Amino acid sequence: MASNKIRIVLVGGSGYAGFEAVRWLGRHPNAELVGVFGSSKNLVPLDELYPLLTKQVSMRQELFEIESVKKLSPELVILCVPHKVAMSYVPLLREAGIRCIDLSADYRIASAEIYEKWYCPHTDTEHLKEAVYGLPEFFSSEIRSANLVANPGCYPTCSVLPLAPVLKAGLIEPTGIVINAISGVSGAGRTPSQKFHFPDRNENFEPYGVGNHRHMPEIEQTLTTILGGAVEVLFQPHLSPMDRGMLCSIYARPAAGATAQKIMEALHAEYDSKPFVRVRDDVLPATKYVSYTNYCDVTATLAKGTVVLFSALDNLLKGASGQAIQNMNIMFGFEETTGLY
Amino acid sequence: MASNKIRIVLVGGSGYAGFEAVRWLGRHPNAELVGVFGSSKNLVPLDELYPLLTKQVSMRQELFEIESVKKLSPELVILCVPHKVAMSYVPLLREAGIRCIDLSADYRIASAEIYEKWYCPHTDTEHLKEAVYGLPEFFSSEIRSANLVANPGCYPTCSVLPLAPVLKAGLIEPTGIVINAISGVSGAGRTPSQKFHFPDRNENFEPYGVGNHRHMPEIEQTLTTILGGAVEVLFQPHLSPMDRGMLCSIYARPAAGATAQKIMEALHAEYDSKPFVRVRDDVLPATKYVSYTNYCDVTATLAKGTVVLFSALDNLLKGASGQAIQNMNIMFGFEETTGLY
Amino acid sequence: MASNKIRIVLVGGSGYAGFEAVRWLGRHPNAELVGVFGSSKNLVPLDELYPLLTKQVSMRQELFEIESVKKLSPELVILCVPHKVAMSYVPLLREAGIRCIDLSADYRIASAEIYEKWYCPHTDTEHLKEAVYGLPEFFSSEIRSANLVANPGCYPTCSVLPLAPVLKAGLIEPTGIVINAISGVSGAGRTPSQKFHFPDRNENFEPYGVGNHRHMPEIEQTLTTILGGAVEVLFQPHLSPMDRGMLCSIYARPAAGATAQKIMEALHAEYDSKPFVRVRDDVLPATKYVSYTNYCDVTATLAKGTVVLFSALDNLLKGASGQAIQNMNIMFGFEETTGLY
Amino acid sequence: MASNKIRIVLVGGSGYAGFEAVRWLGRHPNAELVGVFGSSKNLVPLDELYPLLTKQVSMRQELFEIESVKKLSPELVILCVPHKVAMSYVPLLREAGIRCIDLSADYRIASAEIYEKWYCPHTDTEHLKEAVYGLPEFFSSEIRSANLVANPGCYPTCSVLPLAPVLKAGLIEPTGIVINAISGVSGAGRTPSQKFHFPDRNENFEPYGVGNHRHMPEIEQTLTTILGGAVEVLFQPHLSPMDRGMLCSIYARPAAGATAQKIMEALHAEYDSKPFVRVRDDVLPATKYVSYTNYCDVTATLAKGTVVLFSALDNLLKGASGQAIQNMNIMFGFEETTGLY
Repeated sequence: MASNKIRIVLVGGSGYAGFEAVRWLGRHPNAELVGVFGSSKNLVPLDELYPLLTKQVSMRQELFEIESVKKLSPELVILCVPHKVAMSYVPLLREAGIRCIDLSADYRIASAEIYEKWYCPHTDTEHLKEAVYGLPEFFSSEIRSANLVANPGCYPTCSVLPLAPVLKAGLIEPTGIVINAISGVSGAGRTPSQKFHFPDRNENFEPYGVGNHRHMPEIEQTLTTILGGAVEVLFQPHLSPMDRGMLCSIYARPAAGATAQKIMEALHAEYDSKPFVRVRDDVLPATKYVSYTNYCDVTATLAKGTVVLFSALDNLLKGASGQAIQNMNIMFGFEETTGLY
Repeated sequence: MASNKIRIVLVGGSGYAGFEAVRWLGRHPNAELVGVFGSSKNLVPLDELYPLLTKQVSMRQELFEIESVKKLSPELVILCVPHKVAMSYVPLLREAGIRCIDLSADYRIASAEIYEKWYCPHTDTEHLKEAVYGLPEFFSSEIRSANLVANPGCYPTCSVLPLAPVLKAGLIEPTGIVINAISGVSGAGRTPSQKFHFPDRNENFEPYGVGNHRHMPEIEQTLTTILGGAVEVLFQPHLSPMDRGMLCSIYARPAAGATAQKIMEALHAEYDSKPFVRVRDDVLPATKYVSYTNYCDVTATLAKGTVVLFSALDNLLKGASGQAIQNMNIMFGFEETTGLY
Repeated sequence: MASNKIRIVLVGGSGYAGFEAVRWLGRHPNAELVGVFGSSKNLVPLDELYPLLTKQVSMRQELFEIESVKKLSPELVILCVPHKVAMSYVPLLREAGIRCIDLSADYRIASAEIYEKWYCPHTDTEHLKEAVYGLPEFFSSEIRSANLVANPGCYPTCSVLPLAPVLKAGLIEPTGIVINAISGVSGAGRTPSQKFHFPDRNENFEPYGVGNHRHMPEIEQTLTTILGGAVEVLFQPHLSPMDRGMLCSIYARPAAGATAQKIMEALHAEYDSKPFVRVRDDVLPATKYVSYTNYCDVTATLAKGTVVLFSALDNLLKGASGQAIQNMNIMFGFEETTGLY
Repeated sequence: MASNKIRIVLVGGSGYAGFEAVRWLGRHPNAELVGVFGSSKNLVPLDELYPLLTKQVSMRQELFEIESVKKLSPELVILCVPHKVAMSYVPLLREAGIRCIDLSADYRIASAEIYEKWYCPHTDTEHLKEAVYGLPEFFSSEIRSANLVANPGCYPTCSVLPLAPVLKAGLIEPTGIVINAISGVSGAGRTPSQKFHFPDRNENFEPYGVGNHRHMPEIEQTLTTILGGAVEVLFQPHLSPMDRGMLCSIYARPAAGATAQKIMEALHAEYDSKPFVRVRDDVLPATKYVSYTNYCDVTATLAKGTVVLFSALDNLLKGASGQAIQNMNIMFGFEETTGLY
């Protein structure tokens, strides 16, 4: 049976996205996790880091060495390491002819200049050129043949999915868009700090990153690409006291002639045939309707002369590892929903 | 000692606002709760409804009868009953010469016509005329001599406090303002339903009341009154999985010449001398910094050409019963902060 | 492909256990949900009850009628209806020759007399005789050929798994055992009430059912059956403010010669070869290590002359629907772990 | 007005207990916080550590120097520093003639030998002799005249209060007592770590400290003192995913002749006249009934031949700073409930 399965190597198993990738790969009928590598020297077996995995996956994490990876003959490497680390590994993997899905930000921003303004010097502009932005609802044909997929950020996925069809249909103005987003705390990663200490975080809701969150340029680039014209957004994230889940409330000025019905039609036209976006006529999006799933729920209306869009997803699934598996399915010709129930 | 204290009657002790009023009145050095009345026939002692109160307050709730209230000779009646019920009691209380603070919506909207559009027929337009809107930061002189104070809604308090000084200073446009608000679940009241059932609500974040929340006209009326010119807002509430706390993220277009510094100066000029609003230069507002207090924290900045304001308060205190006690302090000549530490 | 799959009918899709059954059956490679029936007249489609299921399962729930069920030719009916309702359906299903897994209490207690003391009159003592208690770790050979499996309660599963091997090994006294258990709130079901209203339940921990929880006789019966001698326990449940998860802390008197090592050896001997019980040498059981899995984690030690055992599971999976699927796997000859990753 | 107030110095304002002490002292009509000192060099103003305190308390924390403390002429020093630090400060304070309430463990264990077994070498056995254990329900006359009060631990308070009257009345056996306790996460202090990282802690319930929690000898010593005969307990703590609150479920063997009624009578006889312990006939103790109060709720029953006692308190109030203020009230002749509503 294993012979039917593609061989997957995971790089970076210690964060929450890596953990979810392990969990969901374990459910996938056509993929097999054959090795896990990490970037730090203190590498412990996966089930020591995550006792939930005992009896499922007890693999050691090895220190990333390209020769060790090659020995495992993976068809695909999924990288869940931090930005900067990712672009030190990808060139080695690509030179070895291995296809990659990178969950870091390193290959998401097409312009190295913009990347460097928000992150750090880019050290692999060569492969940056071949990277495909892994938002399957809009770039599935490029993803199919891609060798390097830059898996989108959670906030960009949640922001772009509701906005793109409405922008494309010319129903909202492409500037002055406000994206008010909230995330569960797992979105902030696994490193403890005062800000995420349970008694400081529980029963607490707060904004952060005003005007300077790194997902803002990614959102603008993606929408601009899809629209074929400049899109400008103000992106404002907040933390909500919950493990997981993300919800965007988006406010935009209607273009001439826009109606709530036309906006909903544009969303339905785009997504009714796509498996993981659900256009909601029945209920407003809520994080619990999408948690532990790969769905993104969207809806829209007009209120007091403003277009209001809502979207929700699970930040660790459609916002990270679920979307990576969706991309994997497309890259390897599996049905898009395989293993993602 | 009791002789120094004003005599307070509470009408409506069974909801969360009534409960908080009881708790905080118990700490007040100059006020004494002398009776509790309710509107339904199934009236149980307070400490049966709220076992937390045992050994503190064991009063029975009696069915509201104006004669029974009068026998207690209260200087003040605080009403924590639903709208519609409030305006059936207030005329009786006012005719008996008793001063009132009403936490319902019945006397908040000056125009009976607007009230009736959002709520129900108004049956006490006579006393509506004498009602004073109980936002102490802007109407303290009227509150001082008021016989009937309409205690503001939680969302209006949290929305108006950050916006008013900036509008007055002419630093933002008075239209196209978006108020993205979140509330803890106690804001939805004490009646159980599927929506608020713990396993459905926990780990869940969702919007509600799109374009039709009843606090929207109250916000617009109050800002319009303070500014002396029409203000239009889009108010969008959400539920966050936490007991208490409220946070508004507000987006507005800057007027010509507006800078982040000028906006912060306008906030400081308004509030530095006022005890319960804190203008934050140090941290962004967060609900945990205000929970179980009567503070409202506000701050502002400019981001990508948009004015962004944040405000936070405890929906049951500065958003309800704490503000009522602040109003009581003003009405009876106590220091504004008395009993509200 | 569907031809390889067994046909499953679910009766009772509206509760949390039914919902989880739907979710996990959807992942199962060898089973297909072909119909959903309910016991009340107000039957809505599954994805209206649970918007999470949209685009996955949009089946209507029909009113249970034996003829309608038979038309679907199911190999198995899984019942997630309340006790009493279950025993009104099972006779009809069994007479139609359909195998059943019942998640209610109706067929768990072998003695109708004891059942009636704790629940209500038993109206199907005939099939009670053929029912097999569906705890796979101890009764898998009976389950394999069973026509009617009584799926264990969540608390009994979590209590019996740590205790049984230690009792069998003669390492603890069979009387005076105290089981201090906690459950997440989903264990209390989906019906809203004051007790489970979010602001009353959040930040709240409390005991309930002192000395009279219905799972107590089920625990005693099962342990007595496994030991072949009377076992007496005091079972004390509590609610913890979380969605899901269950943890038992069990205190027992050591038998002569018992040591911590021998107790752990007894647990390892029983469970090392079984897929869904994990004997923990590395960490203490915690609900997060088992949530959204079908595992039960157990461990034991001796402290101050008392044997202390801990166990944890997800009340909706190993404590309900996951265990039902595990039983289904055994009944139909699939590998025990199929579809339960 | 200040002249009527006793002058309080707080040592250790940065932890949660220090924070609560500041909050509640601010409400106290007869006490005034005149200075805050800390043990580390990185001392920031209180409202920088706790933005909730802005506009209430903006005191700097100074590095502890006995001369600086003396200059403030405090009538009382409340110490909220870790054990070991406390016993380096107390001798200096006592030699300066200042009365102290110490919230650390340093003066709770009368026997230096036992202390040293569980903590570290004791460096102030001289003042250990004069220390009074600050459980007001049992030692109020000693507290009244004490110069050094060792404020009890949260778990010992919650364990001793239900057990002591029942032991004294001879209604349970003094050995083989099991105390199954749970605490909110604030009980673990303010230092971030993986274990208390929000996404690891939320939706998670787990035991810890099996057989080796430092509060066990404190519980045994206190009960032994009160009973006048050896008491042995097994104390087992757990963490529940909530900010605050503590609940003990206690199991003991009944002595001959014990009945549920007699046990309740023993509790009522002890506590009906005491302001902060409530014997519950109406409801079972639950953490929400005591949170943000100084109450401890207790109740008892007999179930299956075992005496079951429950108790609940707020770990930061009756379990720490509230009890410290209760002790202060007794030491300075104020009514016991002053400032603790």
